[in-house]
Amino acid sequence: MIKGRVAGRVWSTRRIGSLPQGALLEVELENGSRLIAFDPLGCGNGEAVLITQGSVAAAFFEKAKAPVDALIVGAIDETA
Amino acid sequence: MIKGRVAGRVWSTRRIGSLPQGALLEVELENGSRLIAFDPLGCGNGEAVLITQGSVAAAFFEKAKAPVDALIVGAIDETA
Amino acid sequence: MIKGRVAGRVWSTRRIGSLPQGALLEVELENGSRLIAFDPLGCGNGEAVLITQGSVAAAFFEKAKAPVDALIVGAIDETA
Amino acid sequence: MIKGRVAGRVWSTRRIGSLPQGALLEVELENGSRLIAFDPLGCGNGEAVLITQGSVAAAFFEKAKAPVDALIVGAIDETA
Amino acid sequence: MIKGRVAGRVWSTRRIGSLPQGALLEVELENGSRLIAFDPLGCGNGEAVLITQGSVAAAFFEKAKAPVDALIVGAIDETA
Repeated sequence: MIKGRVAGRVWSTRRIGSLPQGALLEVELENGSRLIAFDPLGCGNGEAVLITQGSVAAAFFEKAKAPVDALIVGAIDETA
Repeated sequence: MIKGRVAGRVWSTRRIGSLPQGALLEVELENGSRLIAFDPLGCGNGEAVLITQGSVAAAFFEKAKAPVDALIVGAIDETA
Repeated sequence: MIKGRVAGRVWSTRRIGSLPQGALLEVELENGSRLIAFDPLGCGNGEAVLITQGSVAAAFFEKAKAPVDALIVGAIDETA
Repeated sequence: MIKGRVAGRVWSTRRIGSLPQGALLEVELENGSRLIAFDPLGCGNGEAVLITQGSVAAAFFEKAKAPVDALIVGAIDETA
Repeated sequence: MIKGRVAGRVWSTRRIGSLPQGALLEVELENGSRLIAFDPLGCGNGEAVLITQGSVAAAFFEKAKAPVDALIVGAIDETA
């Protein structure tokens, strides 16, 4: 998995039907690059998150063919 | 997923039979590199798109063995 | 596989239910980048480890759908 | 998929039995790096090609377990 | 696939039970980075090899769940 920090949200009205409904968050990784991950946890802007990539990210969805290759699997505990 | 911007189209007359018919778009990513993605949405040149990569991209196609590892899953909403 | 060295542990209280219980270790790779890997071996801080990535990492878990894309498969023998 | 240009051929006499017979071409990518792809199309040196990577490349072969992670899926049309 | 050159061997006494017995070789790639690949061919130090990565590398093993994501599939013929 990789760590990142939520940097915004992406909206896509024109999309393929098999893309699941739900939040698509833009996450900034530690090296400065960005990716878009599906968020089932309701993470907020600036929150530190743990992301799983590849086919195991898609396995989260009940229907086997969700075209999702990045999934937020946890919010990272941060000490205040 | 990753964000990119449509930068052109690739044509391949001599191809393997299992490569699906349809548009193969060249997409420029935020880091300047490029990849070729299958486009089921009819995206236009310069449009911002969301791309899924790997085996989950191939799962979009009815026949399980489509050799496609990058799929445009949505056009990104952009404010005018 | 890739080599790395354990550099800490990540805690995630708010997480998806299918993420297995167990240690999530932060591992520093030889190029200086970091990833988070599931550790079934009880590795300690500073220990050299061997990591497998991708869908074969998830296959370690009995339930097929564990969203884990990096697994510590061995501690590397180091001469004293 | 990614674009590349055929830069040579690799020969391997001592190989595992499940590696399919056929041409293994060295392809130079746009960023200057190189990979080795299986070529079912008989591409020539210097030709521009489209390559699919990962498990979907292996799905091209009738026997499911071909250890091939890069496949030339098309020759790219180039205007003279 | 990618080309590399055998640069050593890695030993791991404390390992998960599903990691297959056999040589784990450290291979230096053309860009200077290194990875660890399972070697079913008995390659020697300094030998040029061809490596397959990802889930298709694991498919080499009879038991489906071998956590191996890099496999030496051939020794590359080199002219003397």
